[in-house]
Amino acid sequence: MNNKYELIYEGKAKKVFSHEDPDKVIIEFKDDATAFNALKKAKFEGKGRLNCLISSRIFELLISKDIPTHFLELKNENTMIAKKIKVIPLEIVLRNTAYGSLCKQTTIKSGTVLANPLIDFYLKNDELNDPLITKDRIELMKIVSPENLGSIIELTLKINVILKKFFKNIKLELVDFKLEFGYDSSNNILLGDEISPDNCRLWDLNQKNDIIVSLDKDRFRNDLGGLIEAYSEINRRINNFT
Amino acid sequence: MNNKYELIYEGKAKKVFSHEDPDKVIIEFKDDATAFNALKKAKFEGKGRLNCLISSRIFELLISKDIPTHFLELKNENTMIAKKIKVIPLEIVLRNTAYGSLCKQTTIKSGTVLANPLIDFYLKNDELNDPLITKDRIELMKIVSPENLGSIIELTLKINVILKKFFKNIKLELVDFKLEFGYDSSNNILLGDEISPDNCRLWDLNQKNDIIVSLDKDRFRNDLGGLIEAYSEINRRINNFT
Repeated sequence: MNNKYELIYEGKAKKVFSHEDPDKVIIEFKDDATAFNALKKAKFEGKGRLNCLISSRIFELLISKDIPTHFLELKNENTMIAKKIKVIPLEIVLRNTAYGSLCKQTTIKSGTVLANPLIDFYLKNDELNDPLITKDRIELMKIVSPENLGSIIELTLKINVILKKFFKNIKLELVDFKLEFGYDSSNNILLGDEISPDNCRLWDLNQKNDIIVSLDKDRFRNDLGGLIEAYSEINRRINNFT
Repeated sequence: MNNKYELIYEGKAKKVFSHEDPDKVIIEFKDDATAFNALKKAKFEGKGRLNCLISSRIFELLISKDIPTHFLELKNENTMIAKKIKVIPLEIVLRNTAYGSLCKQTTIKSGTVLANPLIDFYLKNDELNDPLITKDRIELMKIVSPENLGSIIELTLKINVILKKFFKNIKLELVDFKLEFGYDSSNNILLGDEISPDNCRLWDLNQKNDIIVSLDKDRFRNDLGGLIEAYSEINRRINNFT
């Protein structure tokens, strides 16, 4: 990144730089992968580029459906320009099918299709390992007002309807996904972060049998191999479709 | 216990036996203490008797304030007769002051007096280590209907008002407590389990300085010693008051 841009924040998978326009930022997608709250780490050449390309396509789709997001435009293949937001320190996870941590914290069997989408909240806090947080605790800690939490839930459910349909069209099952939101300079709530195989569980529907084929970060979490091939396949299907 | 009674269930701190009347059970309080989901274990001679005596006094108080409970009468000093209930597999924790696990799962500082009581739910499941559970997960798993969960929350808040006042009168601060509920044979929701220093955090208000003196199971959890002395002191204050 050019010297004229100041690094504002470096996360596990992205760097955020200042922009000439104080209401904008430049987001560079890194090749680093982390799982289990960064206990497991690796680098996959080309992951940053793929996640940036996939995210930008999905943000464009969501914007076309009137979802407010921070995305403005691609700067290059692994960098996007976005609106500057004040990130709300919550990870919002919507689950259509039970998988992963939900099945370790409840008696719900892995692979159960949920009658209604479940929304779980996690406190964004690396030191505390991003713990599950209840709505009552969110309210007590004044992380976000009940009204704004209501708006976030409504947006998340709308996004799920759009994404489920979109992914189904390209033969992918949207198992679950993680979102982050923030406020712009006028205190509007915008969808932030990224939407990519790093934070969506996507199962291949082009399978003739019942075997689950993950085309997402579970390839890294569960040592399945072929992460870049999976992300490339997602990117390829999105490009062929749009 | 006499041979004519059948052991129905043995928990970490209590044994439940059948009764001649099929709508009743006999609950024997054990001297065993466990903490951190039974990772830590010990035996304290006399604890069962003290918890049984303290619980029966508190159940009597709650019944006198129209709280439906399973308690019927003391059988002897470490055994009580109770209505048979179908236990709802939830631990309901009400917190007046932040302490313990809440402070490890949020950024709320230990000792913070909460503006409003916080109610947390935990799934009663030893294998899963009694994990925190959200209302949405409770609903999804159909553990209890939203209406019954509403009744449980209402009862818990009422119990808090009664117990806070009661303990304050005997110079104890009710920091937090854990309740369990169940259904009787007519599907009425009753308060079950016990109310004792095993599941209430009680701090001595007879302290002239700001030092926290725990008169509860934290003496065991945090290796403070003097558990039986603390429980005896609670029992003594209750007897002197009532």
